Amino acid sequence: MSREQRKAVNEMLRRPQTSKPKTVEKMRADFAAMMTAMKVPTDVRITQTALGNRPGLLVEPAQDARLGIILYFHGGGYVFGSPETAMSLTGNLVSRTSIRSVSLDYRLAPEHPFPAALNDALSAYRALLETGVEAKSIAFAGDSAGGGIAVSTCLMAQDAGLPMPAAVVAFSPSLDKTLSGASIDSKAGIDPFFTRKNLAYTTAMYLSGQDPNQELLSPARFANLAGFPPLLLQVGTNEVLLDDSARMAERARAADVDVILDVTADVPHVFQAFAGILDEADQALDRAAFFIIQHLS
Amino acid sequence: MSREQRKAVNEMLRRPQTSKPKTVEKMRADFAAMMTAMKVPTDVRITQTALGNRPGLLVEPAQDARLGIILYFHGGGYVFGSPETAMSLTGNLVSRTSIRSVSLDYRLAPEHPFPAALNDALSAYRALLETGVEAKSIAFAGDSAGGGIAVSTCLMAQDAGLPMPAAVVAFSPSLDKTLSGASIDSKAGIDPFFTRKNLAYTTAMYLSGQDPNQELLSPARFANLAGFPPLLLQVGTNEVLLDDSARMAERARAADVDVILDVTADVPHVFQAFAGILDEADQALDRAAFFIIQHLS
Repeated sequence: MSREQRKAVNEMLRRPQTSKPKTVEKMRADFAAMMTAMKVPTDVRITQTALGNRPGLLVEPAQDARLGIILYFHGGGYVFGSPETAMSLTGNLVSRTSIRSVSLDYRLAPEHPFPAALNDALSAYRALLETGVEAKSIAFAGDSAGGGIAVSTCLMAQDAGLPMPAAVVAFSPSLDKTLSGASIDSKAGIDPFFTRKNLAYTTAMYLSGQDPNQELLSPARFANLAGFPPLLLQVGTNEVLLDDSARMAERARAADVDVILDVTADVPHVFQAFAGILDEADQALDRAAFFIIQHLS
Repeated sequence: MSREQRKAVNEMLRRPQTSKPKTVEKMRADFAAMMTAMKVPTDVRITQTALGNRPGLLVEPAQDARLGIILYFHGGGYVFGSPETAMSLTGNLVSRTSIRSVSLDYRLAPEHPFPAALNDALSAYRALLETGVEAKSIAFAGDSAGGGIAVSTCLMAQDAGLPMPAAVVAFSPSLDKTLSGASIDSKAGIDPFFTRKNLAYTTAMYLSGQDPNQELLSPARFANLAGFPPLLLQVGTNEVLLDDSARMAERARAADVDVILDVTADVPHVFQAFAGILDEADQALDRAAFFIIQHLS
């Protein structure tokens, strides 16, 4: 238990909310600056790569890699973030599983609204399959918006007649662009990071006027999950996005999908990024790595 | 994936429902006979012991034991079952964790209705603490009714001013003696094992006229879970008891408790007993063992 650590992490994140919305440039710069505080494991090798139509970072274990690949999607509300800002998460999964990962530098809104990011993700997955990697050796993983991409890319792949990846791991995923989860309001003021207002601000950029009432934008509400691969959802109780995961898990259960809803108390959005600082982050990453290893063959 | 295995296990369990309720003796004999089909790991040592006011079985790893102890509560609707009938589960946890376990032979209904089993469980926990085992080195685990005992014993311990165990693992726990979960009806005919009718039959023996609308009998509906230890709930989608776990997880989340709701599709009640026969059983036990090791110190 690390009640003190949990409190310290919440305090770190709790910044005064600015009354004026930030510009896109400022959001991107501030997020990149914040994420440099996160610890990237030293036992992984990071190199530039490309997959499908986009660049990405290849993350490899320093020693013997296990078979398979983790296709990683970083977070940042579809507007900010990059493979670099999520490298503590991607690196920790690689370090713990000894499985290679490609973290995709998908296109961002507002320059490239929905479905640009998903199209990039699907192209990347298709490219992996075309190079001969078997679907049963591929896991999708992502945090926040990237968790949403991981889920929606499965749905697109299924529609396209592609085989499903072996497993999906989503850290605090964003799965409802209608922002209808009860926790959006019930966790207001408890979540040190998100408010309905700042979520709506970036969501509008991603939607660019499109209707959020559709499967690929709000899978927790509308997705047909029949045939979906085993799904691990990790989320904290101090998040407005808690119910995105809770409702997704319920929907997966109802569709006879293997699903683990793994909730850590008193931690914020994507607390796994605090690995090395917060014990619960390391433990959650250990469980995520265990889940990936169980399902990849 | 083992769709074929899952189907075979469901077929194994699906027996013609008798129109007349079985006698207590027949239930006990039939259950004991059925559970002899389950595989007990060969790398554990099983000896008679006693804890508190009851006998039990001590299960030890053949090789170096890790620190800590798993206090195990077998299933059987509070009416049948014994440490022997649950030995595949207890043995597999010990084998996978290298942590010793005591499986308690608590008193059964109808001879000993509520709260006899819980009093035995609390006495056993108190006895463990009195011998100097620290609460942070103790996990509770149980299946079905035994999962309910694991949860309710925590609540009793808290009321008695005792420290909480480090973790609780519950396989398909029975957590609502009012039988109000939606899955009691929605999974009727899908669950190869339980019906509302046969659940009500054994529940009546355990209640012996007492009101099920109370915390210790229906924790999924009434328990105050503040301060509860990390909880792992494993359940299948082919069970009428699915919503006992789903509602418990929701209640735990709302109380800021670390909780994992681990759902396996298309498997029946306490599918983990099919370790060695069903891949998902082994994988679920591996995750349960990982969870116990993460939380015991």
